Amino acid sequence: MATEKSSNEYEGLLPFCLRWVKPIFAKLPAMAVELATMTTKLAKDDMRRVVHALKVGLAITLVSLFYYFKPLYDGFGTSTMWAVVTVIVVFEFSVGGTLGRGLNRVMATLLAGALGFGAHYLASLGGDTGRPIMLGLFVFVLAAISTFIRFFPKMKARYDYGLLIFILTFCMVSLSGYRDDEIAKLAYSRMLTILIGCCFTVFVCVFVCPVWAGTDLHHLVANNIESLATFFHGFGAEYFGLPQEQGEVGKVDMQKYRTILNSKSNEESLTNLARWEPRHGKFRYRHPWKVYLEIGSLNRECACRLEVLNGYLQTKRTQMPSQQIHGPLQEECMKICSELSSGLRELAMGLRKMVPPLTAKAHIEKAKIAAENLKSHLEEWRFEEMNNNKNALEIVHVASLSPLLLDTIGCIVKIVDSVQKLASIAGFKAVEVPSSVAPEQDQGSMQPCHGDVLVAHHVIMIDEESPC
Amino acid sequence: MATEKSSNEYEGLLPFCLRWVKPIFAKLPAMAVELATMTTKLAKDDMRRVVHALKVGLAITLVSLFYYFKPLYDGFGTSTMWAVVTVIVVFEFSVGGTLGRGLNRVMATLLAGALGFGAHYLASLGGDTGRPIMLGLFVFVLAAISTFIRFFPKMKARYDYGLLIFILTFCMVSLSGYRDDEIAKLAYSRMLTILIGCCFTVFVCVFVCPVWAGTDLHHLVANNIESLATFFHGFGAEYFGLPQEQGEVGKVDMQKYRTILNSKSNEESLTNLARWEPRHGKFRYRHPWKVYLEIGSLNRECACRLEVLNGYLQTKRTQMPSQQIHGPLQEECMKICSELSSGLRELAMGLRKMVPPLTAKAHIEKAKIAAENLKSHLEEWRFEEMNNNKNALEIVHVASLSPLLLDTIGCIVKIVDSVQKLASIAGFKAVEVPSSVAPEQDQGSMQPCHGDVLVAHHVIMIDEESPC
Repeated sequence: MATEKSSNEYEGLLPFCLRWVKPIFAKLPAMAVELATMTTKLAKDDMRRVVHALKVGLAITLVSLFYYFKPLYDGFGTSTMWAVVTVIVVFEFSVGGTLGRGLNRVMATLLAGALGFGAHYLASLGGDTGRPIMLGLFVFVLAAISTFIRFFPKMKARYDYGLLIFILTFCMVSLSGYRDDEIAKLAYSRMLTILIGCCFTVFVCVFVCPVWAGTDLHHLVANNIESLATFFHGFGAEYFGLPQEQGEVGKVDMQKYRTILNSKSNEESLTNLARWEPRHGKFRYRHPWKVYLEIGSLNRECACRLEVLNGYLQTKRTQMPSQQIHGPLQEECMKICSELSSGLRELAMGLRKMVPPLTAKAHIEKAKIAAENLKSHLEEWRFEEMNNNKNALEIVHVASLSPLLLDTIGCIVKIVDSVQKLASIAGFKAVEVPSSVAPEQDQGSMQPCHGDVLVAHHVIMIDEESPC
Repeated sequence: MATEKSSNEYEGLLPFCLRWVKPIFAKLPAMAVELATMTTKLAKDDMRRVVHALKVGLAITLVSLFYYFKPLYDGFGTSTMWAVVTVIVVFEFSVGGTLGRGLNRVMATLLAGALGFGAHYLASLGGDTGRPIMLGLFVFVLAAISTFIRFFPKMKARYDYGLLIFILTFCMVSLSGYRDDEIAKLAYSRMLTILIGCCFTVFVCVFVCPVWAGTDLHHLVANNIESLATFFHGFGAEYFGLPQEQGEVGKVDMQKYRTILNSKSNEESLTNLARWEPRHGKFRYRHPWKVYLEIGSLNRECACRLEVLNGYLQTKRTQMPSQQIHGPLQEECMKICSELSSGLRELAMGLRKMVPPLTAKAHIEKAKIAAENLKSHLEEWRFEEMNNNKNALEIVHVASLSPLLLDTIGCIVKIVDSVQKLASIAGFKAVEVPSSVAPEQDQGSMQPCHGDVLVAHHVIMIDEESPC
């Protein structure tokens, strides 16, 4: 007790502060570790993020050095700073984003500069009293109209930044207190520095490890189809409590389809960015980007069905964990799942490698036939079981699976049709491979059932190194 | 033939041009009409858009007039233009957006200004050769780090704009060719004009018809729950081919739940904006906005089930349009649907009016009981029908409906729990209403089953005029 009291007597302002600061300092190492973990995770998930950060640093440094050397500095004056500002605001993650913002900025500056110059001239005719009134009116009307136009969905998607810069430049030019010839000079140098900034930005963005929004969209949609396949690959075995083949598809993998449910906004923004991009890789200038939105929307519809199927799986697990299902039913269900999985996987691979998905439809048709068989098995079996008065829960559960699977198959057929539509519009070409090479490279999980599969299979092996 | 030839003989440059221009001019009226239709639709859908456009115009005009008067113009020099720029880039649709951007801009400018000043001073110690190298290095490192930080999801959601302005201001200050005292003056005037711009913006945004992101989020989530209710209101009657009550719920209304499926990004951005907002209306400063995300995510899970139920509805319509379903089954299904619909509607109304949803749970419990009854009816009936060897398709279809409905009910229970959690955290209070007023105002579709409902019901009537 005496010791406690004596320690309290020493308490002044400094120890009091220390008592507050100490826990914060004690937490610092843990916070630093957490930050480091997050940073490495972020970088590992997509190394292009690190590259992008370095690219932005490079572009700004290049422009600022370009600007630092006297001849240029004397030539453009302080407005050269606009070159640096342009790099900072225009440089986006993808080439499409950068080109879109750059074009928006240049075009809006040109148009608003001309209009602002006109407004400035008109207002100067109004004399000392009329000038501020007219200028205020012009600025009010143009700002209100441009702001309202930003609400149009099509304008918002592609020209939102342009409209912002339009108002900005118009106000800057029309409201500046300079004389007309000074404004013309200002407008000219601003335009030129913005162009220089845009050139540097586009150069670094396109020629140093470019990130194409179109390629990203293409792979995103293909990966989503792959996630659907992964679900079906695991679903049959999980539902019937069978051991997983090679243990390759775990529970975590099966849930990958969930990201599809919220992919709409991402797909839409990538499509908008992709439309700014020039020809690159296998993508032509007018690649049918809008078809990806269709496929994406069908993917989401299908993912909704998987969400319900997944709910069934949980119910099955909790309510009748070890129950055996009638043999033929299980067989047909497993067949449906494996055919759907193979079909979707081939579809995803075909899409990724840009070859026509020739055999996917055949797999889905087989799944359809199996679903019909399931239905008739269900009928027969119910009659048998009914007379034996066996577990009714089991019947209801498997019976309810069959229309849901049929519904899902219908959804997948639509996905296949959309991908085939994309393949025909975009002109995907099947790649011929000498048949002698085929058997040696056969190692994937796909089982080639006839010639077409071999073709699709081989393209994958050949192109495997291409994505960067 | 002769006439054709003679008309071709006259073809010169002008007629050739006319032939191209004419169709464009011919299309102009149609295009103008289309534009007008789109504009009126956009304005009618949400009149706040028009008000927002006028508000932006007003704020810019106010700042530019403030700037036009000589004393201020002479005081701040050309940097006053930054006030106008600030208004343009900071003014957002919602108060939360405007405050967030304003705070980001002010804080980032302050921090980057100080750092840039330091960098400028350090670089000047390096002499004529060291200066550009050190400046280049500083700019490269800071730009790369800030750009990478923008990839952190939490930073992107709240401080993306601030990080952009940070790089921008740092480059502007550190790279400027001025002497130190000039930079200090520049930084001071820039800071002051940005503050003036922010003040004007926030003033107009908050005091002229404010749009609160928090209120929008609150109503969005309540409307989504209402959409789920609307689906169930129509589903039972549609499925069993019964005449709709009063014809009020059409096919179009039933599909409203589809917008929920893609509401995630909207809800997330509204939540981020709402967190910047001060106390307003019934919302306190630390209102639990994150719980809305939980409810939204459960709404989407439920909407997935509705998507599948809707698919069943289409199948039923096309494959067995006029088939009669066994009486007791139909009754129980209708009961489930009407109870779910009432429960969800009360939940939505309670949420909208910020009173605890006291009776919603009771409705859902009733729906659960009905679902259990449906199950046992299904058992009995199947034995009867089996012996009569009647239509099997019907059995499978209705049997498959029952686990799906049970699954959906489980999902709705979670929604009710989340809303109750929100009600308790946010401190929703039940409003006491004199019981004498109750019978006169009873006109809605809700059937009060005990006292609590009356309370919820009356609050709605009282508050009906409050949303603006």
